[in-house]
Amino acid sequence: MKFEDRAGTPIGTADAITIERWKAATPEKTGGAARDSIYRSLTGRRVLASLSPDSKSKERFVVLAPELAVSHWFNTSEPLTLSGLRGRPVLLHAFQMLCPGCVAHGTPQTQRAFELFRQSDLQVVGLHTVFEHHEAMTPVALQAFIHEYRLTFPIGVDEAGEGTPIPKTMQRYGMQGTPTSILIGRDGSIVHHGFGQQGDMALGAIIAAELAAFRHAAS
Amino acid sequence: MKFEDRAGTPIGTADAITIERWKAATPEKTGGAARDSIYRSLTGRRVLASLSPDSKSKERFVVLAPELAVSHWFNTSEPLTLSGLRGRPVLLHAFQMLCPGCVAHGTPQTQRAFELFRQSDLQVVGLHTVFEHHEAMTPVALQAFIHEYRLTFPIGVDEAGEGTPIPKTMQRYGMQGTPTSILIGRDGSIVHHGFGQQGDMALGAIIAAELAAFRHAAS
Amino acid sequence: MKFEDRAGTPIGTADAITIERWKAATPEKTGGAARDSIYRSLTGRRVLASLSPDSKSKERFVVLAPELAVSHWFNTSEPLTLSGLRGRPVLLHAFQMLCPGCVAHGTPQTQRAFELFRQSDLQVVGLHTVFEHHEAMTPVALQAFIHEYRLTFPIGVDEAGEGTPIPKTMQRYGMQGTPTSILIGRDGSIVHHGFGQQGDMALGAIIAAELAAFRHAAS
Amino acid sequence: MKFEDRAGTPIGTADAITIERWKAATPEKTGGAARDSIYRSLTGRRVLASLSPDSKSKERFVVLAPELAVSHWFNTSEPLTLSGLRGRPVLLHAFQMLCPGCVAHGTPQTQRAFELFRQSDLQVVGLHTVFEHHEAMTPVALQAFIHEYRLTFPIGVDEAGEGTPIPKTMQRYGMQGTPTSILIGRDGSIVHHGFGQQGDMALGAIIAAELAAFRHAAS
Repeated sequence: MKFEDRAGTPIGTADAITIERWKAATPEKTGGAARDSIYRSLTGRRVLASLSPDSKSKERFVVLAPELAVSHWFNTSEPLTLSGLRGRPVLLHAFQMLCPGCVAHGTPQTQRAFELFRQSDLQVVGLHTVFEHHEAMTPVALQAFIHEYRLTFPIGVDEAGEGTPIPKTMQRYGMQGTPTSILIGRDGSIVHHGFGQQGDMALGAIIAAELAAFRHAAS
Repeated sequence: MKFEDRAGTPIGTADAITIERWKAATPEKTGGAARDSIYRSLTGRRVLASLSPDSKSKERFVVLAPELAVSHWFNTSEPLTLSGLRGRPVLLHAFQMLCPGCVAHGTPQTQRAFELFRQSDLQVVGLHTVFEHHEAMTPVALQAFIHEYRLTFPIGVDEAGEGTPIPKTMQRYGMQGTPTSILIGRDGSIVHHGFGQQGDMALGAIIAAELAAFRHAAS
Repeated sequence: MKFEDRAGTPIGTADAITIERWKAATPEKTGGAARDSIYRSLTGRRVLASLSPDSKSKERFVVLAPELAVSHWFNTSEPLTLSGLRGRPVLLHAFQMLCPGCVAHGTPQTQRAFELFRQSDLQVVGLHTVFEHHEAMTPVALQAFIHEYRLTFPIGVDEAGEGTPIPKTMQRYGMQGTPTSILIGRDGSIVHHGFGQQGDMALGAIIAAELAAFRHAAS
Repeated sequence: MKFEDRAGTPIGTADAITIERWKAATPEKTGGAARDSIYRSLTGRRVLASLSPDSKSKERFVVLAPELAVSHWFNTSEPLTLSGLRGRPVLLHAFQMLCPGCVAHGTPQTQRAFELFRQSDLQVVGLHTVFEHHEAMTPVALQAFIHEYRLTFPIGVDEAGEGTPIPKTMQRYGMQGTPTSILIGRDGSIVHHGFGQQGDMALGAIIAAELAAFRHAAS
């Protein structure tokens, strides 16, 4: 069985996928419809119908974003998990400290998002997804990087892969490289999976659209 | 009687103010609460309580943004009015073609918003609010400017003031200068009044939050 | 008879060309050789041999840059002429106030050069070469532009052409558009004719190389 | 005995100083006068008279820039020394791979200088002067940085200091931090010692002025 997230991006491996059945209100009441409409209008991408609320049965099926696998955390006193953050939107920024596009654009953009939305319930999570130059981008080097670039949002080190240079969370999400910015919705699904440079205005809009979505509870 | 918009900015003259009584759904249903919450969290500014829905009476009072006064339009086959746009969010960008901060930042940002949100129902409106160098910033000069800078959103020339260098719409909104970017909500009220340089991420967020608000009808 | 300047750019019309015979020192002593060498190494372009010093006869022939034709001056109490500036390097910046590449890059770069080299004997001259939108880019509009963009170097309005939209100096130099930055050497010849965006580092280098050239007197 | 370079910057330790006596031509012929004049006009800084040619005796004393101490080289098949480069201008760029001002500005600027002046006899030398986060900025990490940022100019690792975090070359030059860009003249002396962000135009000018200086031989 193969799955795509709502943005049409394949999700790597079936075993990382969890489907939850939501007892949802009518679409108009969930706010999901408004959000999907903004997402479609911003990106021109299809939101998978099969994952939309089934208006007849009033049930909704959600493909959950894969859980994080993190070996070390910075800027947070306790580990973060997506399951623990359910109900809040999560901006997940995957980067490497020696990736020029991350350093010049993606990572400072994530810091801006952290500061701009700090009074909302958005959770910003950085993820150091080292898939090359492993001997250079060690945790001690990352710590110096975080210090020098004055990054204050929580940052996890993606757990090393077994028999592959690709770390675990990166694999689970089928990320194509760095920087990658992923927005996980209040319902735990992937709302946006963006590889490469994202515009500030579009990112701000996608986050705000998700913040505007109402919370709903799993059955 | 003095009025402030929801952003706490004084609205110039009482005669430009219209108050409408809205038969509104409960706050949770209007989406207004979600939007106000995002706005507050982004800006740290107070949203005037007196303009919030009165949950008891289910009535809501809205101070409408002043109507536009435009002597000439570019990039639109027919004149635009806020009353005709009611129900849609409107991004109103006031600029002058010889204002460096507009040319370098505000005006291209507005063009980006026009392109990013083009599939939504946001209406972008430029307003050439000439309050200095009137002999230099004539309509024929503006036309050349629009051509050279490849601006494609509708742009109106703010109607000349009488006995004052400040044009009429600029007066009605109590604008402090250019660039000024104002977001008018679906309900016709001023959601955001920003003088000077606005960040792309915050502007994208405020627009998306308003797009997510549900429409409601006047009584 | 056709002429090219040392940068290999054709000079428009033969009647605008003046050839002077210089009684020059040997090439090593004039500094011209050093300058030509830097210019060649920076641009990879040939410096015309026919314009180089004739080491045997100790005579040197120079094609003079065409004289300016200016109808109005700003930022200078008296008109500037290339003949009056002979012996000093001249940075001639041709622009239009509604040319985006000028406003964003070329014109502020020229202001930077004016400030950086202000204690040297470089003369910076702006030239408003209006070849389109003539009704928009009038002298009064230019004056407002100069004020708003805080330009402090001398700026002349290129004299209107007869029976052509191209103004006179622009024609004489065979300029292809705006922005164009031309460096005229101490000997009155065109050292560099650059159309479009010039890098700051290369421009600084070309100017400094010319400043380092020794003065020599016409016979 | 204390020494300052021509830019007025103290040179750290006396034992690193070598004074050479030059049999120089008259100042006009050396080109040094022209260069000093450009330098003064660009920087407004005094060029030390005591290091200028003594016009009477026709002798000139030069304080040589301290020699490099490098433990490992990248992008060059053999080690570089200032003594081996005598007669050629040298742009020495001291940086750290985790210094944000280096990564965003100084290091790409040095790469631009390397490319712009590649046909001249300027030698560009990078120097990795690690004075903090030593465990993060190892040679293997630097190698990854050089690869990712596509740096192609020769880069040396400044030799570790003994009993101090400051590496040896950094000490010898009395550098205050990174980025630092130093221009060493054809005569081996320090022409410019710039700590922090240097403008492209000024750097291009200072380099070109030095390139224009004539070579002269030690007695």
